[in-house]
Amino acid sequence: MMVIVDFTVVPVGTGVSLSPYVAEVERVLRRTGLNHELHANGTNMEGEWDDVMAAIRSCHEALHAMGVPRIHTDIKLGTRSDRPQLMAEKVASVRARLMD
Amino acid sequence: MMVIVDFTVVPVGTGVSLSPYVAEVERVLRRTGLNHELHANGTNMEGEWDDVMAAIRSCHEALHAMGVPRIHTDIKLGTRSDRPQLMAEKVASVRARLMD
Amino acid sequence: MMVIVDFTVVPVGTGVSLSPYVAEVERVLRRTGLNHELHANGTNMEGEWDDVMAAIRSCHEALHAMGVPRIHTDIKLGTRSDRPQLMAEKVASVRARLMD
Amino acid sequence: MMVIVDFTVVPVGTGVSLSPYVAEVERVLRRTGLNHELHANGTNMEGEWDDVMAAIRSCHEALHAMGVPRIHTDIKLGTRSDRPQLMAEKVASVRARLMD
Repeated sequence: MMVIVDFTVVPVGTGVSLSPYVAEVERVLRRTGLNHELHANGTNMEGEWDDVMAAIRSCHEALHAMGVPRIHTDIKLGTRSDRPQLMAEKVASVRARLMD
Repeated sequence: MMVIVDFTVVPVGTGVSLSPYVAEVERVLRRTGLNHELHANGTNMEGEWDDVMAAIRSCHEALHAMGVPRIHTDIKLGTRSDRPQLMAEKVASVRARLMD
Repeated sequence: MMVIVDFTVVPVGTGVSLSPYVAEVERVLRRTGLNHELHANGTNMEGEWDDVMAAIRSCHEALHAMGVPRIHTDIKLGTRSDRPQLMAEKVASVRARLMD
Repeated sequence: MMVIVDFTVVPVGTGVSLSPYVAEVERVLRRTGLNHELHANGTNMEGEWDDVMAAIRSCHEALHAMGVPRIHTDIKLGTRSDRPQLMAEKVASVRARLMD
């Protein structure tokens, strides 16, 4: 089952700057080979359910290994059984409507 | 890695009543044996990362099998490397502070 | 417009124990008079949109006043135009289906 | 208090295509004048707390006026008391680290 997710990893019990941790998340995701894209409040990613969830687990493992004692993560995800969908199509279909 | 999650499954492209689907989610979770508790806006659950994510995937599969064409799910989750934690302790530790 | 929300306030840049902050959130909410209930991963609350959002803003203000430099909050919310709904009904309607 | 949010509006009890509703959300946001950006799983937006929450409420009102009976929305938000921050800086600070 394919899934499209947006997720945000929030380290707790560390300093106030989170960019070192977000950069580490990005490095972990690059190694997975999954299609993903960083945005201002999280990361969009798509792939097989198990691969996507294993990638997010790897992010948690990497941050705990950096010394983060506690991690809060939000995931928004979508699956469809009616037809396949890619992340790129979602923004494109909204833009097409705005140009009508 | 143990994880505590709160998740909400939102069927899209169905009727306005969601309780048949939330009831099915509850039935799926009971079969997993994972500790979980329904609340007004979702379900709290705890267990090993892979077991928890497989349980949520099973909920998606069960709802698609009921004919739901599209599902949006939110997951909030927490992991800790400093010490183990159970859901039951989280509310208890807040209540203890409120009684000080 | 009435809204039912679930929200979780995550202090960033503090120590690893979050219960002092969750307790403060609870104290702020009690002063608002809004119907709310703490659960293992957040707080359910219901009321008029503006009152609910002002309550969550007050929680942020109170935590910043305690010295929390950065706060991440998740809110899941629902509104309906077909009929009014209360939090208490949501769990009850699922439970009724499970007893069929 | 300034806030940076990511939010996703999920119409419930409608057809399976959500792009007409996401396009309407975009039209509502353009009228608010708030800085915002659509991405594959939601919209990032920044501004004063009350303005941002009023904008999201306007999206709900507009969708209910289109006939959507029930709406589920997720909001992730962040506030800071240590220093001001803009959305554009968040991605830039992560990218700078990845180039080290």
